[in-house]
Amino acid sequence: MDAKQSACTFKTSILRGGRREGVEAAEVDNGRLRLVLLPQRGMGIWKAWLDGVELGWRSPVPGPVHPAFVPLDDPSGLGWLEGFDELLCRCGLQSNGAPDFDDKGRLLYPLHGRIANLPAEEMQCRWDDHTGALSVTGDVHEVRFHHQHLRLRSTLTVRPGEGGFAIHDEVTNLSGWPATMQLLYHYNLGPPVLGAGASVIAPIMELSPRNRRAAEGIDRWDLYDAPAATTEQVYFASMHAQPDGRTMALLKSADGALGASVHWNRSQLPCFTLWKNTNTLDDGYVTGLEPGTNFPNPRTFEAECGRTVALVPGETRSFDLDFAFHVGADNVRGAVSAIEALRKSSEPARILRSPQVGRRSVGDPD
Amino acid sequence: MDAKQSACTFKTSILRGGRREGVEAAEVDNGRLRLVLLPQRGMGIWKAWLDGVELGWRSPVPGPVHPAFVPLDDPSGLGWLEGFDELLCRCGLQSNGAPDFDDKGRLLYPLHGRIANLPAEEMQCRWDDHTGALSVTGDVHEVRFHHQHLRLRSTLTVRPGEGGFAIHDEVTNLSGWPATMQLLYHYNLGPPVLGAGASVIAPIMELSPRNRRAAEGIDRWDLYDAPAATTEQVYFASMHAQPDGRTMALLKSADGALGASVHWNRSQLPCFTLWKNTNTLDDGYVTGLEPGTNFPNPRTFEAECGRTVALVPGETRSFDLDFAFHVGADNVRGAVSAIEALRKSSEPARILRSPQVGRRSVGDPD
Amino acid sequence: MDAKQSACTFKTSILRGGRREGVEAAEVDNGRLRLVLLPQRGMGIWKAWLDGVELGWRSPVPGPVHPAFVPLDDPSGLGWLEGFDELLCRCGLQSNGAPDFDDKGRLLYPLHGRIANLPAEEMQCRWDDHTGALSVTGDVHEVRFHHQHLRLRSTLTVRPGEGGFAIHDEVTNLSGWPATMQLLYHYNLGPPVLGAGASVIAPIMELSPRNRRAAEGIDRWDLYDAPAATTEQVYFASMHAQPDGRTMALLKSADGALGASVHWNRSQLPCFTLWKNTNTLDDGYVTGLEPGTNFPNPRTFEAECGRTVALVPGETRSFDLDFAFHVGADNVRGAVSAIEALRKSSEPARILRSPQVGRRSVGDPD
Repeated sequence: MDAKQSACTFKTSILRGGRREGVEAAEVDNGRLRLVLLPQRGMGIWKAWLDGVELGWRSPVPGPVHPAFVPLDDPSGLGWLEGFDELLCRCGLQSNGAPDFDDKGRLLYPLHGRIANLPAEEMQCRWDDHTGALSVTGDVHEVRFHHQHLRLRSTLTVRPGEGGFAIHDEVTNLSGWPATMQLLYHYNLGPPVLGAGASVIAPIMELSPRNRRAAEGIDRWDLYDAPAATTEQVYFASMHAQPDGRTMALLKSADGALGASVHWNRSQLPCFTLWKNTNTLDDGYVTGLEPGTNFPNPRTFEAECGRTVALVPGETRSFDLDFAFHVGADNVRGAVSAIEALRKSSEPARILRSPQVGRRSVGDPD
Repeated sequence: MDAKQSACTFKTSILRGGRREGVEAAEVDNGRLRLVLLPQRGMGIWKAWLDGVELGWRSPVPGPVHPAFVPLDDPSGLGWLEGFDELLCRCGLQSNGAPDFDDKGRLLYPLHGRIANLPAEEMQCRWDDHTGALSVTGDVHEVRFHHQHLRLRSTLTVRPGEGGFAIHDEVTNLSGWPATMQLLYHYNLGPPVLGAGASVIAPIMELSPRNRRAAEGIDRWDLYDAPAATTEQVYFASMHAQPDGRTMALLKSADGALGASVHWNRSQLPCFTLWKNTNTLDDGYVTGLEPGTNFPNPRTFEAECGRTVALVPGETRSFDLDFAFHVGADNVRGAVSAIEALRKSSEPARILRSPQVGRRSVGDPD
Repeated sequence: MDAKQSACTFKTSILRGGRREGVEAAEVDNGRLRLVLLPQRGMGIWKAWLDGVELGWRSPVPGPVHPAFVPLDDPSGLGWLEGFDELLCRCGLQSNGAPDFDDKGRLLYPLHGRIANLPAEEMQCRWDDHTGALSVTGDVHEVRFHHQHLRLRSTLTVRPGEGGFAIHDEVTNLSGWPATMQLLYHYNLGPPVLGAGASVIAPIMELSPRNRRAAEGIDRWDLYDAPAATTEQVYFASMHAQPDGRTMALLKSADGALGASVHWNRSQLPCFTLWKNTNTLDDGYVTGLEPGTNFPNPRTFEAECGRTVALVPGETRSFDLDFAFHVGADNVRGAVSAIEALRKSSEPARILRSPQVGRRSVGDPD
């Protein structure tokens, strides 16, 4: 084992106590960035520490929570919220978004789907001899006999000394029948990146508020206030991208000295949702940068809008994302410049001031 | 460690098999009274043994049941009943009482709430050097992101050689938003204290039957029949109390030689519910003495009656209860005298013969 | 221990990873036939291997699945399908069959009931000194306080060197109140017995299709096609039997060299359901031979048809089944002859070509 290899380490432990009893924590460390992966929670990433600074957010939920304690099938469709505290969690695979009900009020699709509360069947760890990169792969099956059988094969990669990580996800329809899927990456950041005066920078093509509450804040959609007892604001957007489809978004701290960016491919994930939850610190002061195959409206509505992904039997869709943390003003400015380059020679962002009927949440309480 | 300290012991074990797989049993022993605490079941008390005699009751449910096996979110709202077998279990914190539904028949609040099926995050054990008392404290979080975050900090205390135990509970609103709570102590006794001819003695101010079935037995509301295939009878009452609010209720065995009393503060727990379930021994022959912040009607109804507790952000409410077992006629008579003293110079109990509209269960099947 | 005893072995292990984490696998081996029993899944039988050949089927569900991961109370009533992959699983005890709802669309009885996702409280193993037979007994309680308390006492027996196994089940009403029960044996076979050209042979008295989809295939109800993307076909039947009530059904491979038969008593299990699910191999190519107390329609409908079993307090019903694997054409012909003997001197089978109102599924989507 050479020096490069030894720079990346992997170890697992089993957590004990409360609702985290039995949760496996898989720790990946590249010498600078430490991540805790949660194979039982759909290969989500619980938290990250860069040079010892904790990234992620402080959810009121004392997680990580074992899926057996998450009442996903609560008739309200909101039980998912009892397990939500990750830096990165996936919403899908059959559906994501607000709960969806039939005309009798019976739950069809719970909030954000099942994938974040399904355990990986197995996990594999590989070191690249040349680069020293470490990859962890896990398979999560979202399967109900006579219904869907979708497999998420998720690979997380870290490289020695880098301040970020990469995700390569493959979703395969293992059924002999056609299927549809949805996937949204709920990437959540709180302090120290988030704070009063922090901003989100993104190559917006068009952006609209999800509902009346979001419309109230449309003039400041990209700026963050200090924590306060306030309700969430959600914006739906499309993005400019490079010719190959790559695009990105950045959360920048108020002083410009810290940033977190997410990079993805618009052809894989055409919809970008910005979740501003500048609630009290006790209730979770957090923002979500959320690339997705769709907007997080009830699935039935999104399907009507054509925002599900069709998969023929055996078909695989890939999703490639990079997550980078930027430390120091120069580093942050570099990310800002990259986004400005995406905007250049493009029309200015169209910021719509009211919810768009074709995009907004169906049955949203406003 | 002196002699007094050594009189109280604490040990834990993990139960195996069936639906009790993985349940932690925390045994507290003061030399005379042995209790089994269930940290995973909201710090409930499974059973007690006084001088080797088992107290509690024989539920048909072969518990203690791990919360993962309790279908709390069954659309009927009655899944809680698959885990119910404790001597003392709490009902709350967001709600307790009969299941509550919206106008589409969709479950809003399941029977008796979540707290009895939520695990304590951590448990601490303290010995008092002077008194030899042993205290066990556990924190249980009832939290759903964007919804409530209530924390129960429960402390059980036993003193060397005493035939009882004390509970000090603190419920704190950890959210930055106002909250409401409900809490009811479901204290359940079967044989040997309960039996044909046993009676309940309490300083009743006013008592009414919950429904028609309870009204049938109003003339004998305080007396118990032998086990038989019969349905439960529930009575709602208010109590006289000392000037400081302390009050109590007693279950007395038929021969007067055995008793179990519960002592609480009326200003903390103004509502007293008596649950007479003189069903067959196989189905659970048991009575519940239940001090609560409210009566166990659906939460919506109780809220309309003003029977929820409001908590501003950060606010804590305390609940102090003592539980005593009385062995021998003299000891039991002492408890009876204490209750008579509470009644003295008070008006006689108002026993209402029919269900009171303002108090009875909404949608109760009669 | 003599040679006969040593021919049968029993050992248990705990499975790890994914949704099988913590599942106990109890392996029974008679020297020729190896079975894996699942005490936590209601004493179901996961798979069998005869002379090293795997019997059972390949479900898309990567089981065996721990009950904590099966959302039995999903408002759709179909959560059971996330745990279904056994060779033999019981459907009951309070209900089986299609989900049943009240007039508000609220789930009353989930698909196939709870018994297959309830853990046995304890398991006992006995060797018969004379025959060398090995019996494994487990008790599974289906209990909800104030509702049903039914106990399944299930005994599996294997004899040294035999190509089959026996089940003796006792269901007891442990309540002091009358109860009703339902029980269906979902016995599921895939390749190598099942395949294009395989057939089912049974002493049919009368058979009818469950719905329009099944009616389409009525002329070939007893023949199997190759795997294809097709929907299930279900047939309901009554059987001829010996004077003592014993009857049987056989699945015969296309070449006649392999068979699997199930033997039961018509007075215990009067209803026979044939489930033909010749779906793709990826989705589960499987057929079910299903003796039951009823047909797997919603419970309310079956109760109206008188197809529930009444149990007075303390009453026990027994169910005795034998399962045999037949290797070699002679062996298979023997089983066919036994069925022909049951038909002899009986009227020919009445094959009804359309769904029978009195038998078909209520609310079935056709």
